[in-house]
Amino acid sequence: MTTRPVSPNLALDEVVAQRRARGETIAHFGFGESRLPVFPQLALRLAAGVHRSAYGPVAGDPTVRAAVAGYFGRRRVPTEPDQVVLAPGSKALLLALQIVVPGHVVLPRPSWVTYAPQARLARKPVHVVPIATDHGGVPDPALLRRAVAGAQGQGLIVLTIPDNPTGTTASPELVRRICAIAEEKDLLIVSDEIYRDLRHHPDVPFLSPAEVAPERTVVLTGLSKSMALGGWRIGAARFPAAGRWRSLRDAVLSIASEMWSALAGPMQEVAEYAFSEPPELRTRVAEDARLHAAVASAVHRLLIEAGATNSRPTGGFYCYPDFESLRAPMADLGIRNSAQLQQHLLEEHGVAVLSGHHFGDDSQALRFRVATSMVYGDSEEEQMQALQSRDPAGLPHIRRQLDTLAAALANLSGRWRRP
Amino acid sequence: MTTRPVSPNLALDEVVAQRRARGETIAHFGFGESRLPVFPQLALRLAAGVHRSAYGPVAGDPTVRAAVAGYFGRRRVPTEPDQVVLAPGSKALLLALQIVVPGHVVLPRPSWVTYAPQARLARKPVHVVPIATDHGGVPDPALLRRAVAGAQGQGLIVLTIPDNPTGTTASPELVRRICAIAEEKDLLIVSDEIYRDLRHHPDVPFLSPAEVAPERTVVLTGLSKSMALGGWRIGAARFPAAGRWRSLRDAVLSIASEMWSALAGPMQEVAEYAFSEPPELRTRVAEDARLHAAVASAVHRLLIEAGATNSRPTGGFYCYPDFESLRAPMADLGIRNSAQLQQHLLEEHGVAVLSGHHFGDDSQALRFRVATSMVYGDSEEEQMQALQSRDPAGLPHIRRQLDTLAAALANLSGRWRRP
Repeated sequence: MTTRPVSPNLALDEVVAQRRARGETIAHFGFGESRLPVFPQLALRLAAGVHRSAYGPVAGDPTVRAAVAGYFGRRRVPTEPDQVVLAPGSKALLLALQIVVPGHVVLPRPSWVTYAPQARLARKPVHVVPIATDHGGVPDPALLRRAVAGAQGQGLIVLTIPDNPTGTTASPELVRRICAIAEEKDLLIVSDEIYRDLRHHPDVPFLSPAEVAPERTVVLTGLSKSMALGGWRIGAARFPAAGRWRSLRDAVLSIASEMWSALAGPMQEVAEYAFSEPPELRTRVAEDARLHAAVASAVHRLLIEAGATNSRPTGGFYCYPDFESLRAPMADLGIRNSAQLQQHLLEEHGVAVLSGHHFGDDSQALRFRVATSMVYGDSEEEQMQALQSRDPAGLPHIRRQLDTLAAALANLSGRWRRP
Repeated sequence: MTTRPVSPNLALDEVVAQRRARGETIAHFGFGESRLPVFPQLALRLAAGVHRSAYGPVAGDPTVRAAVAGYFGRRRVPTEPDQVVLAPGSKALLLALQIVVPGHVVLPRPSWVTYAPQARLARKPVHVVPIATDHGGVPDPALLRRAVAGAQGQGLIVLTIPDNPTGTTASPELVRRICAIAEEKDLLIVSDEIYRDLRHHPDVPFLSPAEVAPERTVVLTGLSKSMALGGWRIGAARFPAAGRWRSLRDAVLSIASEMWSALAGPMQEVAEYAFSEPPELRTRVAEDARLHAAVASAVHRLLIEAGATNSRPTGGFYCYPDFESLRAPMADLGIRNSAQLQQHLLEEHGVAVLSGHHFGDDSQALRFRVATSMVYGDSEEEQMQALQSRDPAGLPHIRRQLDTLAAALANLSGRWRRP
């Protein structure tokens, strides 16, 4: 029996929950969950969806797929309902894609913790290609070209725009260059756009590969991040309507029918409402994005002050610092790789972050991901306060956790000071 | 790209829905869904679970797992919460099991449409072993012994008690014999007991392999059938606590973390309530079982009258007739195999059933599955009427569909009469 580990971010979240239950105080920057209250209208829709107890179509009901098609249509990606598949999370859709698309898998390095294990589950050879310095989520074009130069036949490349773990957003120019290489090298593009609506400012430019190469791009999205609904498990995919990948959706539906049957009916009711984007929900998403921007920016400044190299985050709720500059003082603390760094921060300072090697990065690099969205408060009151504040990073309950992080990082450089 | 078909029962359900939407009248005996209203308390729990928007533990929250453990404990299978995993349907759990358990897969013939395609997805060699005449869901012991005589190393055997498609329940004696062979041949037993609470009478004996061989049995269950909640996608598994398979749960959790993350939080709220089995819910399950028994028995009689060989159903909502006796008159109609028989009934008589070959059965045999649980009514009123009736098969809206089935079958023997 092949025993693999549990996905490291989910595993770390469970460890933090268990330690807190035992009375430990932990500043939780280790998990990519938007810890915010459920928007009341979404709760009402769930309750209204209780009658949806039949299995229904594997892809999702036509009305739900129409809502998702509309969502994409409003984003310069005209879509018909029969290009859409709903699922219990975009993770399941991504695994189905990895299973049905033949050939190798190209992943940016670093990239989301689940892409590579899923490729292993699907028994695919993986090419890991470093990102360009400033933009995570897509590989450096020159390195990509080199990596796939010798590759035979079809393949699949996964992009994350905006990115997890770096919190950056690939530029339209970069997206165009990657799409050109994908055309040239016959790569299907899976564009994971689950953080799309959480760009920090409306002027962060965004180009979907589906606008550039619609016949070879599958777009993944979901409500976990933008609607703070991770635990409701609602994902969606948009497939090509024409071209040589036009039968890809049918192939994924086959896997779906043997893996999850259909997205739960009441969740389809929620999806139908959410993807139709009524004004009140757009307002809430904008508020969420502003909060994520404020706290991620505060963490970014804090990381720079602590001596890290860190690209300014532009979407989602992550920073991905590199502490190479502190290698010497860290060595004095016995920290020589990213796993030791994660361990040290948790055990010595009660700070949970996720080590870079989990994202496929060089295990010797002193990098980790700081998820900034779990510190908004333990109660709904604190979370609403965070949502409504002009300076959320200044709120005492958030400030306290940022200070804990800052103190832990100061310690890495030997500049330990009690906050 | 490998294009496989959509699971045939789900596909047939979509075809029926599309044809009905176009105005066709179809008697739908083709899909294993319990078409009954959601029990009001379950709807209330779903609404109460809206706050469960965090991802939480992959296996499910401890309180939910405790409820599932209690469910098994009340069924002579003492269980700790850390033996339990929740999932969006038992289908996902079964696929994870097929992926992690090494070696070959042994399936009864016929058996549920999903077992074999999942084994192919997991790239496992499959041994298909015919059932004993009277009891589906488990292979004939002598044939099983012969089939695995030459097999090397570990394997996995899937049992279905009560069975889909035959609607029969393996006897305790038969279960013991299969467990003995499993011990001898080192087979992990996956016991699919999703119809357990829908036995037609309390005196239908039931023995779980988990009582006989607890260290090599995984039990699958869910709320889709007993609670008429197929579209809510709630499944659960119970794993061995000790022995050489004690790490199996961890291996499944790893797959789970890369495939579905966790069962949706509001669905966990529902599961916590349902698996704790409050009296009002037990009453409803008993009413459901009585209804399924009444209609399945009426269909059984109708099949016998039409000339079929058919084992008396004792659990769930299926019959699995064999019309070998009508081979000659069917040949006159151009029907020579089970696929043609399914096609004929749908196209000529508007009767949807699922052909035996989809269950792995001999494609030349004249067998099909009749699912008896979709005919309870199109409205909640009709469905409640069915639930409360002393003679549900006599209700006009159910009678009409049984008559359509009877007329279609009479046609097969050349004894066509308009009902």
